[in-house]
Amino acid sequence: MTHMASAGGDTSADNVGSTGGRTVAPRPYRLADVPGPLARDELAAIDAWWRAANYLAVGQIYLTANPLLREPLRAEHVKPRLLGHFGTVPGLNLVWVHANRAIRQLGLNAVFVAGPGHGGPGPNACGWLEGTYSEVYSHIPQDAAGMGALFRQFSFPGGVPSHCAPETPGSFHEGGELGYSLLHAFGAALDNPDLTVFCVVGDGEAETGPLATSWHANKFLNPARDGAVLPILALNEYKIANPTILARIPEPELLSLLRGYGYEPIVVAGDDPAAVHQAMATAVDTSMERIGRIQGAARDGADGARPSWPMIVLRTPKGWTCPPVVDGDQVEGTFRAHQVPLPGARTDADHRAVLEQWLRSYRPEELFDDDGKPVPELTAQVPVGERRMSANPVANGGTLLRDLYLPDWRDFGVEVTAPGATRHEATRVLGGWLREVTRHNPDNFLTFAPDELASNRLQDILEVTGRNWQAEIDRRDQKLDRGGRVIEVLSEHMCQGLLEGYLLTGRHGVFTCYEAFIHIVDAMFNQHAKWLDASSAVPWRRPIPSLNYLLSSHVWRQDHNGFTHQDPGFLDVVLNKKASIVRVYLPPDANTLLSTYDHCLRSRHYVNVVVAGKQPQADWLSVTEAAEHCARGIGIWPWAGHGDEVGTMPDVVLACAGDIPTLETLAAAAILRERLPDLRVRVVNVVDLMRLQTQDEHPHGLPDSEFDTLFTQDRPVIFAFHGYPWLIHRLTYRRTNHDELHVRGYRERGTTTTPFDMVMLNDLDRYHLVMDVIDRVPSLRERAAGLRQEMVDARWTARAWTREHGEDLPEVADWNWPYQRN
Amino acid sequence: MTHMASAGGDTSADNVGSTGGRTVAPRPYRLADVPGPLARDELAAIDAWWRAANYLAVGQIYLTANPLLREPLRAEHVKPRLLGHFGTVPGLNLVWVHANRAIRQLGLNAVFVAGPGHGGPGPNACGWLEGTYSEVYSHIPQDAAGMGALFRQFSFPGGVPSHCAPETPGSFHEGGELGYSLLHAFGAALDNPDLTVFCVVGDGEAETGPLATSWHANKFLNPARDGAVLPILALNEYKIANPTILARIPEPELLSLLRGYGYEPIVVAGDDPAAVHQAMATAVDTSMERIGRIQGAARDGADGARPSWPMIVLRTPKGWTCPPVVDGDQVEGTFRAHQVPLPGARTDADHRAVLEQWLRSYRPEELFDDDGKPVPELTAQVPVGERRMSANPVANGGTLLRDLYLPDWRDFGVEVTAPGATRHEATRVLGGWLREVTRHNPDNFLTFAPDELASNRLQDILEVTGRNWQAEIDRRDQKLDRGGRVIEVLSEHMCQGLLEGYLLTGRHGVFTCYEAFIHIVDAMFNQHAKWLDASSAVPWRRPIPSLNYLLSSHVWRQDHNGFTHQDPGFLDVVLNKKASIVRVYLPPDANTLLSTYDHCLRSRHYVNVVVAGKQPQADWLSVTEAAEHCARGIGIWPWAGHGDEVGTMPDVVLACAGDIPTLETLAAAAILRERLPDLRVRVVNVVDLMRLQTQDEHPHGLPDSEFDTLFTQDRPVIFAFHGYPWLIHRLTYRRTNHDELHVRGYRERGTTTTPFDMVMLNDLDRYHLVMDVIDRVPSLRERAAGLRQEMVDARWTARAWTREHGEDLPEVADWNWPYQRN
Repeated sequence: MTHMASAGGDTSADNVGSTGGRTVAPRPYRLADVPGPLARDELAAIDAWWRAANYLAVGQIYLTANPLLREPLRAEHVKPRLLGHFGTVPGLNLVWVHANRAIRQLGLNAVFVAGPGHGGPGPNACGWLEGTYSEVYSHIPQDAAGMGALFRQFSFPGGVPSHCAPETPGSFHEGGELGYSLLHAFGAALDNPDLTVFCVVGDGEAETGPLATSWHANKFLNPARDGAVLPILALNEYKIANPTILARIPEPELLSLLRGYGYEPIVVAGDDPAAVHQAMATAVDTSMERIGRIQGAARDGADGARPSWPMIVLRTPKGWTCPPVVDGDQVEGTFRAHQVPLPGARTDADHRAVLEQWLRSYRPEELFDDDGKPVPELTAQVPVGERRMSANPVANGGTLLRDLYLPDWRDFGVEVTAPGATRHEATRVLGGWLREVTRHNPDNFLTFAPDELASNRLQDILEVTGRNWQAEIDRRDQKLDRGGRVIEVLSEHMCQGLLEGYLLTGRHGVFTCYEAFIHIVDAMFNQHAKWLDASSAVPWRRPIPSLNYLLSSHVWRQDHNGFTHQDPGFLDVVLNKKASIVRVYLPPDANTLLSTYDHCLRSRHYVNVVVAGKQPQADWLSVTEAAEHCARGIGIWPWAGHGDEVGTMPDVVLACAGDIPTLETLAAAAILRERLPDLRVRVVNVVDLMRLQTQDEHPHGLPDSEFDTLFTQDRPVIFAFHGYPWLIHRLTYRRTNHDELHVRGYRERGTTTTPFDMVMLNDLDRYHLVMDVIDRVPSLRERAAGLRQEMVDARWTARAWTREHGEDLPEVADWNWPYQRN
Repeated sequence: MTHMASAGGDTSADNVGSTGGRTVAPRPYRLADVPGPLARDELAAIDAWWRAANYLAVGQIYLTANPLLREPLRAEHVKPRLLGHFGTVPGLNLVWVHANRAIRQLGLNAVFVAGPGHGGPGPNACGWLEGTYSEVYSHIPQDAAGMGALFRQFSFPGGVPSHCAPETPGSFHEGGELGYSLLHAFGAALDNPDLTVFCVVGDGEAETGPLATSWHANKFLNPARDGAVLPILALNEYKIANPTILARIPEPELLSLLRGYGYEPIVVAGDDPAAVHQAMATAVDTSMERIGRIQGAARDGADGARPSWPMIVLRTPKGWTCPPVVDGDQVEGTFRAHQVPLPGARTDADHRAVLEQWLRSYRPEELFDDDGKPVPELTAQVPVGERRMSANPVANGGTLLRDLYLPDWRDFGVEVTAPGATRHEATRVLGGWLREVTRHNPDNFLTFAPDELASNRLQDILEVTGRNWQAEIDRRDQKLDRGGRVIEVLSEHMCQGLLEGYLLTGRHGVFTCYEAFIHIVDAMFNQHAKWLDASSAVPWRRPIPSLNYLLSSHVWRQDHNGFTHQDPGFLDVVLNKKASIVRVYLPPDANTLLSTYDHCLRSRHYVNVVVAGKQPQADWLSVTEAAEHCARGIGIWPWAGHGDEVGTMPDVVLACAGDIPTLETLAAAAILRERLPDLRVRVVNVVDLMRLQTQDEHPHGLPDSEFDTLFTQDRPVIFAFHGYPWLIHRLTYRRTNHDELHVRGYRERGTTTTPFDMVMLNDLDRYHLVMDVIDRVPSLRERAAGLRQEMVDARWTARAWTREHGEDLPEVADWNWPYQRN
């Protein structure tokens, strides 16, 4: 550890003593003569950039006009609502300018991740100084008018948000919900050997769970194959109203923590700009030198022992360079500088005067020429073209996207001679294909799992790769590999966050998870879906690969694990997001799963949620049939119904979505066919849940006419559904026949049981579905009363059996479709 | 740090060398003579308990009959499905028996938290050995028959889950979803000065985000006021299929990490039982002595500097004492021991023979008498009565529940002389009452917030207390207090988990959060709701205080923060859970919020979700009116409608739920009253969202007749809703008038804007609601066409204003209800 603490300077503070209700402006500072790697000119230039970026940030927060202060600041120049967080901005700008120095000196290919919340003014300012902002937004040129537009649009109606967002050039990380910066940074670095990610982690963000565990992402970063992440912990000590934990533990304890996470921290601390610039330059130089050494050794074939990566602890005042005292309260260096230091600038003449002094303290006249353009001293510091972090294509991953080579999924399908004649573990079959996807795409496809890859039956992937593991490997361990293409870590947050970082930078992947526990990342899914949505409207962004979930170990096969493992509600969360972004698929067997996943890996800019079983289940559709059925997304299975010829109208529709509901529906259809042979039964299977919505709700929505053709306008529909039943009502409430739609699905009443008992608990079993048909088809009520009672009895028999034997009645467990295809 | 590594013994392993496909049984071991605090007899007794508990655990996993092996083990004695995870069990049992020694010696009041997943067999076994299991379940006596029943019920239909659950005596922590053990432990210790929580953290669980940050909970544990948590990191090295990160970093790095988290770790490592027992006894003794010293100093008035709490790192083999080799593969000490070491015990005679040898290796004949009762050597180790961890009432928090003293909320209400005559920040008003709740309940009420207490306007609480903070305090910090009754940490997971631990042990609290970010704890909410549901069915459990959310900074006032901060979908997640558990309230103003919250803090065993605004909003109801309206949960506001006298039928119903939808609805009603005075308009406000469901769906559901009276059977209903609009459809799709229900709510299309512009973006604004009325009431289409066009124009005018001025049109922002009460 190198501790680079500068002497505390008072360059930015006026008299802070007993100020009563005074508001004190910061004084312009001159750079002290501090020794370090920066020559006097270079120090001055770097500080000029920093001042320029800080000036532009303050301007964004406060001004709608008069950007260069060419006239005295008046109330109407100040925004009516003051938004954005200044507190973290000077730190972000400091890292940016020092990263630029390293980029220029070392020819780095680098991107920037801004973790702290609402720090958007910083990267916006840097992007404008680098010219990128003007290149991607023609209405914001690099001149006085453009500066005015840059200021005005910030957190203004129709403008840009207060944090980094899709609109921010060079950002692939949204700064809205905190906790994911480091995961996105590491995800970007995977398979990007030449990339350096400067990742600023806020000390508030560092308190979140996802961030706290994501330091361990260094256990999955291969120095030979992957790029580097330089975490910069921005220790400005305060959140909105509180100090941060990491700022209020002794520094040795903090360094012990960071070393325990596997980093070698370098501390840069101080409040004197010159001293901090010199210390930061040294810290970045040292970090780059260490990264180079680590990567060099690994790429020269060293043994691959996990290195201790450098990181920087940047301890500078909150709101550094802002007014030190406002209305008598210390502001700079306290929580009061977190948001907007001078809240009364529009209405309070004193505040406004101090705001003007504050802005002038950055000496804008030295930074921008008469036209408002950055002076040559600033532009000389801008890296060339795509080396600018604001213009790096890595942050606009769609531009770098390479299609996956996908072997024909049909070659991996199972042979289906007759419906139900064979059984397969659907995800296991998928795993065979994913193995080849992994093999053929060795540098842009990864699979993530929270210790559930094999549990979800995707282990065939491990025939061509291992699990990525940079930590120690013991002889008892299996399938660990420094170059592994599977990342397993018992953190859904890490799986999701690393994959997001990988996707956002243009590569492809799959996240497989137990269905119930995917709720752990509900919030991350929400934010990613919002990114996809918002970025679709940003003209210079290109679509990125879809986020693909494979949820298995699903609710209907968690009987033995019990209630805690039963939750199909992620679908409800997903369907709250913009219809243009989300897709939900429930393939009923192995071949439909293959076809579905092939589609998902070819898609762009979606979130694809696929729920599939891992237990041996009957195969229903051949490869050819699966391809057609999945292309339709929904359809009649004519071989499963009866009396349902073209041109006739069924007496009842049995609909199903999900593998277990499909099984139970077919078993019910078989009972009806045997016992009520004159009843016209139609079986409809739904793979693509979005087909149920209307066309104006979702692009996949079936036209009403087609929906009515499938589901009739007035016949009872018994719908067996994988998830919570009301989701089907929500999707279909506008459909003609909705009043006749009766849904069976999961409700919160699970317990420790067997598979069929679990289904019975939720009235989704074959016997209950037959009872539902009898109850809903008026003509059956009397004549099928005997059959109905048989069904009731069959359920009690099945239940009693499970309680005695601990497994399902053989005639249920071994049931198979008893007919040939029509 | 004390490193207590035993010499590696081979007591439990047979020849592990080149075994081909052999399966090797563990050998019975004799205790080596290892020096330590345990005298020979005590060592033998502790080991006997450990063996007994391990035996009972293996029995639970495998056996349905023949529990004492009084006859040779046959296939039919073995369960058809083998569930539960043995790998972690020996570690859990080891901690339990050593905790018992400390309890007896020191008279501790202690509880046990089992973090590792599916380790239920361990605590079940210990509870049965302690007699508690038989006390709470009369069908599981402490004899051979009871042992058989204990075994059979485990992970068996109708039985208990494979992890600790509400059914487990002594557990207040569910072991289903991983990550929350330490938070529950710390939550239990808060305000429990005499309590010691032995908390076993799995090294798999330790990879999760929530667990990774929850080590920092020691920054909120006051040694004078709170109890102690002794974390035991169970480092058995493996998850289901992978090693753990913490097991594969060098031990100095691990210890550095734990010290960085603020603990003083003691390492206990080895695989020789005698040596590990001695080391564990020393470690527990040392820990207890340190805890005593820390608490003694604090309670004697020491300065309160944060202590370094002890913890134990327990590094023992996965599946310790299980068959070392199965089918030629090393099992003990590897990932293969994670779940069921002998998967073929029912069908494979070799496996079954090894299972029998394995069971006999614990020497059951020494542990249980002829009747199957534990021998006196075991029962002598059982603490007395409620000192048994399996019987500690702390783990059945409802038995310890003390009602809160709640000052009359009416005294804190705002005066409402006329609807809309005054404005208040609703949550600020609530804060005044919560201040008094905090003051009057100084040891059983806490408020949690992720750095958002003041942002959500509850800062008045800080007039009577500070924020709990045991880390360093700087002169710039404010309102930090060693004894503070507010816990703020920027981790929704920590807030939720600590509060859960506090509630589960019988105390009360509130979690206030930004609405959008409460999704971060969706999964934790799900699990807590499942606990409440399942525990309701456990006869010896008593209801605990409700989990109370106060969600503010809600979707309609996140216009300035933008899209990332807009998400009302937590309501959808909540309403998937059992209706008997969940409640959702949307009070429209300050007095209704007060009344609602009074109700919530009096309730038991619910999850109450309250969404309320923090911005100045019109007051609509007086205290008296609010009390009545909240008691109804839904009702007509006669003063807001017109022509809606008793006995008449309205032409249209304007319904609303949520503060902003209520405001816009009233503004629309006022426009209609002025412009279409002969139109009969009814205004219905919904506070309790559950009233919309039918009675068979939710206990709060309105009878259909009452629903029809409010909403009519056939008139158009324009429903302005706080959340995603389809939630209202889902709740009401069975109602008579559902086809005439038109819902306006939030849809994913937010951007940076102003409050009214945000409402307009979602067609929820007053003008659009009037347009909706005109579109839905047939008689208006022609005669109100002019008004409709005015409304369209008004929207464009409002939008243009915001784009120019950055704030809302004054006539909108300043609008107020223009009429007197009827």
